[in-house]
Amino acid sequence: MTQNYQAQIYVTLRPSVLDPAGTAVKSGLSHMGYNNVEQIRIGKYVELTIAADSEDAARQQLDQICDQLLANPVIENYRFDLQKLSTPLNVGS
Amino acid sequence: MTQNYQAQIYVTLRPSVLDPAGTAVKSGLSHMGYNNVEQIRIGKYVELTIAADSEDAARQQLDQICDQLLANPVIENYRFDLQKLSTPLNVGS
Repeated sequence: MTQNYQAQIYVTLRPSVLDPAGTAVKSGLSHMGYNNVEQIRIGKYVELTIAADSEDAARQQLDQICDQLLANPVIENYRFDLQKLSTPLNVGS
Repeated sequence: MTQNYQAQIYVTLRPSVLDPAGTAVKSGLSHMGYNNVEQIRIGKYVELTIAADSEDAARQQLDQICDQLLANPVIENYRFDLQKLSTPLNVGS
Protein backbone atom coordinates (compact mmCIF):
# COMPACT_ATOMS: atom_id res chain seq x y z
CA MET A 1 0.00 0.00 0.00
CA THR A 2 1.31 3.40 -0.92
CA GLN A 3 2.28 5.54 2.02
CA ASN A 4 3.06 9.22 2.13
CA TYR A 5 6.26 10.52 3.63
CA GLN A 6 7.36 13.99 4.61
CA ALA A 7 11.01 14.73 3.82
CA GLN A 8 13.33 17.49 4.98
CA ILE A 9 16.37 17.71 2.70
CA TYR A 10 19.53 19.64 3.59
CA VAL A 11 21.92 20.47 0.74
CA THR A 12 25.28 21.84 1.86
CA LEU A 13 28.48 22.80 0.08
CA ARG A 14 31.31 20.31 0.54
CA PRO A 15 33.79 21.56 3.16
CA SER A 16 36.51 22.01 0.53
CA VAL A 17 34.35 24.31 -1.62
CA LEU A 18 34.47 28.07 -1.09
CA ASP A 19 31.19 29.72 -0.04
CA PRO A 20 31.10 33.31 -1.35
CA ALA A 21 27.54 33.83 -0.09
CA GLY A 22 28.59 32.78 3.40
CA THR A 23 31.56 35.13 3.24
CA ALA A 24 29.25 37.97 2.20
CA VAL A 25 26.91 37.26 5.10
CA LYS A 26 29.84 37.18 7.52
CA SER A 27 31.03 40.53 6.17
CA GLY A 28 27.53 41.98 6.50
CA LEU A 29 27.24 40.76 10.07
CA SER A 30 30.61 42.34 10.92
CA HIS A 31 29.40 45.67 9.55
CA MET A 32 26.28 45.33 11.71
CA GLY A 33 28.43 44.79 14.79
CA TYR A 34 28.16 41.01 15.09
CA ASN A 35 31.84 40.09 15.31
CA ASN A 36 31.15 36.94 17.29
CA VAL A 37 29.92 34.86 14.35
CA GLU A 38 32.22 32.51 12.43
CA GLN A 39 32.17 29.63 9.96
CA ILE A 40 29.02 30.62 8.10
CA ARG A 41 27.99 28.17 5.37
CA ILE A 42 24.83 28.68 3.35
CA GLY A 43 22.93 25.79 1.85
CA LYS A 44 19.48 24.83 0.66
CA TYR A 45 16.61 23.40 2.65
CA VAL A 46 13.87 21.56 0.78
CA GLU A 47 10.61 20.21 2.19
CA LEU A 48 8.49 17.83 0.15
CA THR A 49 6.07 14.95 0.43
CA ILE A 50 6.65 11.73 -1.48
CA ALA A 51 4.41 8.73 -2.02
CA ALA A 52 6.11 5.33 -1.94
CA ASP A 53 5.41 1.68 -1.11
CA SER A 54 7.86 1.62 1.80
CA GLU A 55 10.30 3.83 3.66
CA ASP A 56 13.19 2.13 1.87
CA ALA A 57 11.61 2.89 -1.49
CA ALA A 58 11.09 6.52 -0.46
CA ARG A 59 14.73 6.82 0.64
CA GLN A 60 15.95 5.29 -2.62
CA GLN A 61 13.88 7.70 -4.70
CA LEU A 62 15.01 10.67 -2.60
CA ASP A 63 18.64 9.67 -3.16
CA GLN A 64 18.02 9.69 -6.90
CA ILE A 65 16.14 13.02 -6.78
CA CYS A 66 18.93 14.65 -4.76
CA ASP A 67 21.69 13.28 -6.99
CA GLN A 68 19.94 14.20 -10.22
CA LEU A 69 18.22 17.49 -9.44
CA LEU A 70 18.45 19.02 -5.98
CA ALA A 71 22.19 18.76 -5.32
CA ASN A 72 25.28 19.02 -7.49
CA PRO A 73 27.29 16.01 -6.27
CA VAL A 74 30.56 17.58 -7.46
CA ILE A 75 30.39 20.43 -4.95
CA GLU A 76 27.49 19.61 -2.62
CA ASN A 77 26.52 17.03 -0.02
CA TYR A 78 22.98 16.28 1.02
CA ARG A 79 21.16 14.48 3.78
CA PHE A 80 17.48 14.10 4.56
CA ASP A 81 15.05 13.21 7.32
CA LEU A 82 11.91 11.24 6.58
CA GLN A 83 8.65 10.80 8.52
CA LYS A 84 5.62 8.75 7.60
CA LEU A 85 2.51 10.89 7.24
CA SER A 86 -0.69 9.59 8.74
CA THR A 87 -3.01 11.75 6.67
CA PRO A 88 -3.66 10.78 3.04
CA LEU A 89 -2.12 12.89 0.29
CA ASN A 90 -3.69 13.44 -3.11
CA VAL A 91 -0.73 12.70 -5.34
CA GLY A 92 -1.30 13.28 -9.03
CA SER A 93 -4.62 15.03 -8.54
CA MET B 1 32.76 32.97 30.33
CA THR B 2 32.21 33.05 26.61
CA GLN B 3 30.99 29.81 25.11
CA ASN B 4 30.81 28.80 21.49
CA TYR B 5 27.60 27.50 19.99
CA GLN B 6 26.88 25.76 16.72
CA ALA B 7 23.63 26.87 15.08
CA GLN B 8 21.57 25.33 12.27
CA ILE B 9 19.14 27.90 10.88
CA TYR B 10 16.21 27.02 8.64
CA VAL B 11 14.61 29.84 6.65
CA THR B 12 11.34 28.92 4.94
CA LEU B 13 8.76 30.81 2.94
CA ARG B 14 5.56 31.53 4.84
CA PRO B 15 2.82 29.08 3.81
CA SER B 16 0.78 31.86 2.17
CA VAL B 17 3.66 32.91 -0.11
CA LEU B 18 4.02 31.37 -3.57
CA ASP B 19 7.22 29.41 -4.18
CA PRO B 20 8.12 29.60 -7.90
CA ALA B 21 11.41 27.73 -7.36
CA GLY B 22 9.52 24.88 -5.70
CA THR B 23 7.04 24.82 -8.58
CA ALA B 24 9.94 24.65 -11.07
CA VAL B 25 11.50 21.73 -9.18
CA LYS B 26 8.15 19.92 -9.10
CA SER B 27 7.79 20.44 -12.85
CA GLY B 28 11.34 19.18 -13.42
CA LEU B 29 10.69 16.09 -11.32
CA SER B 30 7.51 15.37 -13.28
CA HIS B 31 9.47 15.54 -16.55
CA MET B 32 11.99 13.10 -15.04
CA GLY B 33 9.20 10.67 -14.20
CA TYR B 34 8.81 11.42 -10.50
CA ASN B 35 5.08 12.03 -10.32
CA ASN B 36 4.85 10.96 -6.69
CA VAL B 37 6.32 14.14 -5.22
CA GLU B 38 4.13 16.96 -3.93
CA GLN B 39 4.24 20.10 -1.82
CA ILE B 40 7.83 21.09 -2.58
CA ARG B 41 8.99 24.20 -0.74
CA ILE B 42 12.53 25.50 -1.07
CA GLY B 43 14.22 27.44 1.69
CA LYS B 44 17.65 28.31 3.01
CA TYR B 45 19.81 26.36 5.42
CA VAL B 46 22.55 28.25 7.28
CA GLU B 47 25.19 26.79 9.58
CA LEU B 48 27.30 29.07 11.74
CA THR B 49 29.14 29.26 15.03
CA ILE B 50 28.45 32.05 17.48
CA ALA B 51 30.27 33.07 20.66
CA ALA B 52 28.08 34.21 23.56
CA ASP B 53 28.02 34.36 27.33
CA SER B 54 25.04 32.00 27.62
CA GLU B 55 22.66 29.99 25.49
CA ASP B 56 19.96 32.61 26.08
CA ALA B 57 22.30 35.34 24.82
CA ALA B 58 23.16 33.25 21.75
CA ARG B 59 19.46 32.68 21.01
CA GLN B 60 18.71 36.38 21.40
CA GLN B 61 21.51 37.36 19.00
CA LEU B 62 20.45 34.71 16.49
CA ASP B 63 16.90 36.07 16.56
CA GLN B 64 18.28 39.52 15.74
CA ILE B 65 20.58 38.17 13.01
CA CYS B 66 17.74 36.23 11.39
CA ASP B 67 15.30 39.16 11.58
CA GLN B 68 17.81 41.69 10.26
CA LEU B 69 19.80 39.74 7.68
CA LEU B 70 19.10 36.06 7.05
CA ALA B 71 15.32 36.11 6.69
CA ASN B 72 12.81 38.55 5.27
CA PRO B 73 10.15 38.57 8.04
CA VAL B 74 7.47 39.75 5.59
CA ILE B 75 7.57 36.55 3.55
CA GLU B 76 9.77 34.13 5.49
CA ASN B 77 9.79 32.24 8.78
CA TYR B 78 12.87 30.92 10.47
CA ARG B 79 13.79 28.53 13.25
CA PHE B 80 17.12 27.34 14.54
CA ASP B 81 18.77 24.59 16.58
CA LEU B 82 21.67 25.36 18.89
CA GLN B 83 24.35 23.15 20.45
CA LYS B 84 27.14 24.14 22.79
CA LEU B 85 30.56 23.40 21.32
CA SER B 86 33.15 21.87 23.60
CA THR B 87 36.14 22.86 21.49
CA PRO B 88 37.36 26.47 21.65
CA LEU B 89 36.77 28.72 18.66
CA ASN B 90 39.06 31.57 17.66
CA VAL B 91 36.50 34.32 17.20
CA GLY B 92 37.85 37.58 15.88
CA SER B 93 41.27 36.14 15.11
